[in-house]
Amino acid sequence: MEREELFKEISIKSPSKIILIVLDGVGGIPFKDGKTELEYANIPNLDELAKKSVLGQTDPILPGVTPGSGPAHLALFGYDPLKYQIGRGVLENLGLGVEIKKGDIAIRGNFCTLKDGLIVDRRAGRISTEENKRLCLKLRKRIKKTEGVEILFTPGMEYRFALRLRGKGLGADVSDADPQIVGKSPVVPKAISRESKKTAKIAEKIINLAKDILQDENRANFILLRGFSTLPPLPSMQELFRLNPAAIATYPMYKGLAKLVGMEVLKVDGMSIEDEIETLKKNYKEHDFFYFHIKKTDSYGEDGNFERKVTVIEEFDRFLPEILSLSFDVLVVTSDHSTPCLLKAHSWHPNPYLLYANTIIPDEQIAFSERACAKGGLGRFFSVDAMGLMLGHALKLKKFGA
Amino acid sequence: MEREELFKEISIKSPSKIILIVLDGVGGIPFKDGKTELEYANIPNLDELAKKSVLGQTDPILPGVTPGSGPAHLALFGYDPLKYQIGRGVLENLGLGVEIKKGDIAIRGNFCTLKDGLIVDRRAGRISTEENKRLCLKLRKRIKKTEGVEILFTPGMEYRFALRLRGKGLGADVSDADPQIVGKSPVVPKAISRESKKTAKIAEKIINLAKDILQDENRANFILLRGFSTLPPLPSMQELFRLNPAAIATYPMYKGLAKLVGMEVLKVDGMSIEDEIETLKKNYKEHDFFYFHIKKTDSYGEDGNFERKVTVIEEFDRFLPEILSLSFDVLVVTSDHSTPCLLKAHSWHPNPYLLYANTIIPDEQIAFSERACAKGGLGRFFSVDAMGLMLGHALKLKKFGA
Repeated sequence: MEREELFKEISIKSPSKIILIVLDGVGGIPFKDGKTELEYANIPNLDELAKKSVLGQTDPILPGVTPGSGPAHLALFGYDPLKYQIGRGVLENLGLGVEIKKGDIAIRGNFCTLKDGLIVDRRAGRISTEENKRLCLKLRKRIKKTEGVEILFTPGMEYRFALRLRGKGLGADVSDADPQIVGKSPVVPKAISRESKKTAKIAEKIINLAKDILQDENRANFILLRGFSTLPPLPSMQELFRLNPAAIATYPMYKGLAKLVGMEVLKVDGMSIEDEIETLKKNYKEHDFFYFHIKKTDSYGEDGNFERKVTVIEEFDRFLPEILSLSFDVLVVTSDHSTPCLLKAHSWHPNPYLLYANTIIPDEQIAFSERACAKGGLGRFFSVDAMGLMLGHALKLKKFGA
Repeated sequence: MEREELFKEISIKSPSKIILIVLDGVGGIPFKDGKTELEYANIPNLDELAKKSVLGQTDPILPGVTPGSGPAHLALFGYDPLKYQIGRGVLENLGLGVEIKKGDIAIRGNFCTLKDGLIVDRRAGRISTEENKRLCLKLRKRIKKTEGVEILFTPGMEYRFALRLRGKGLGADVSDADPQIVGKSPVVPKAISRESKKTAKIAEKIINLAKDILQDENRANFILLRGFSTLPPLPSMQELFRLNPAAIATYPMYKGLAKLVGMEVLKVDGMSIEDEIETLKKNYKEHDFFYFHIKKTDSYGEDGNFERKVTVIEEFDRFLPEILSLSFDVLVVTSDHSTPCLLKAHSWHPNPYLLYANTIIPDEQIAFSERACAKGGLGRFFSVDAMGLMLGHALKLKKFGA
């Protein structure tokens, strides 16, 4: 019996409420005075909560394996990240706020420099994001539809863009149209399966059209396409866990990931934690599961900006009492992956994990930090198992077997 | 390589002895003075043993998932509970002490009330267990055999009974003969596979015969049949682990489960822990693995009777020195699942797990409790892995690979 079948069999609809707070990339390693970001931050409310909670640490994929945001979030939502893989093209589009539906083909693109028939710069001299916007607009205007397939270019950061194909009879088994190294000729996209022939043909057409349109550009005079992908066949959280889940997030990627698993993405008026809490309160009656995402902990982690990451953690701590004043059954504070300021990148370190419910056995930990969590009563477990744990403590699971 | 292949390859026969003590449902959550049942109990011998042992906590199925006794025990015996599922009909029969052999069809039954062709009470007004016995005897006398198939009715609690079919050419792919809700007509059992046609036909015949026999009954004038099942194809513990295992238990369900995996079920003269220890001593030379089951911790947990559950734990503690005086290589004290008095039911909380052997690295824990186990040297692991751990510490496993 697979995990999915198990949860379909034992999950029950109930009025109990679960709040999952994801402080993106909050986990760190010692940086200042031998302390991590969480240890350095002044977080009296989180520490107070930790005293009444049970702590643990979670591995998003496997010990030592650093995840991207996609697999890390899927795991937190209860989906095996090695089973359900989200293609690069899909993530790129989601990250830019582009809707991807079943049957759509999602692709990542680079602007690049072509000279004498050879690719001499795969990043077109790292053109600015502004220039990227101008170029994508230019392409959008002239490449809209072919063979009944709608084509959508969306600018990303610097030289990156996302491409979406929407229409009938498209498959994603298409090889990358990217030689990966400079000094080579462009590569024609090739269909790997019969079902993807139309996609390959259209992609080739798009590349040729783009070449014409961009021919007068100085640096960005050609495009590379890769990561052809479609939505993975994800069962929804409604189907698997009988939840009526909602997402509160401010960045497109996380809204997109939440939508993929069937969450209703709630409108947040603004980008601040305060705005997100306002949304939580306003919609609190309507759902039994809330995914509450805070992005800036990760952003400052990636920048290596210890002070600012600490400030975001402290800001969240000040708002925590407002969340605690709501009536809930299970509250979890954790992260999708660690982003230590020292590494300026996602890392493989397990996530600190705090669970608060009436049905726990509190441990002796008195602070919310990586080291306190490593000594917590929940021990170490996989992120993918965190959903079952929340559902269990919310009394949303029937007994398995007699 | 599957778990089964691995153990078949590396298990070796040896004279070392393992004792697995299962205090059924012993795990709890804080109930009185902030203490769990184990924390409240006065258990000097278990605490003394904990000082010399290594502790840990085990998940029977997955974090958050509450198991029935069947899957929880299979996991403890080293069988993946999501792979080997025991049907409801089999468990019902085993629980009533009915032997189920390969090829037998095991079924759960309800007495119910039929009025004007409709089922108006699926539980026949919750008739008494005494009345149930009378009715089953009545059915037994008149429904014995048909088409070469032996039929056995066994009374359970209140309105429940178990039915066993024994004969040739029987399959268990038969739909429930139970509309599940009142106000509906009876449902005819239907064969889902060709191999189960005979079973469905006989089940229908039994239902019709029972209707005639019970027609003058006031409430229990009809029967519902469901959970048609056969033994799962379980490899034996002899085959998998090269053990010569024995079970010491007083309740039919656990004796039945032990028999399923190939244990010899030893006769216990009486129902007390003392009686069970007598059996252990008397048969100690004959086996290399003993499953020693104590039921009352679970029973009082289900009743929410904290004082009595504590008393059973304390009673076991007083007998522990007698077990420790035997010459063994590995001793484990754990539970199949938790049954916190606070919840009055099985729960998903991990089991406290204590392992005592010459080959362990003792941890710093000085008590046997949920919280001590959560800090124990073994960490958190799956129940299904506990068998390998015991075999390893008993030096019953060869090196895997070179």
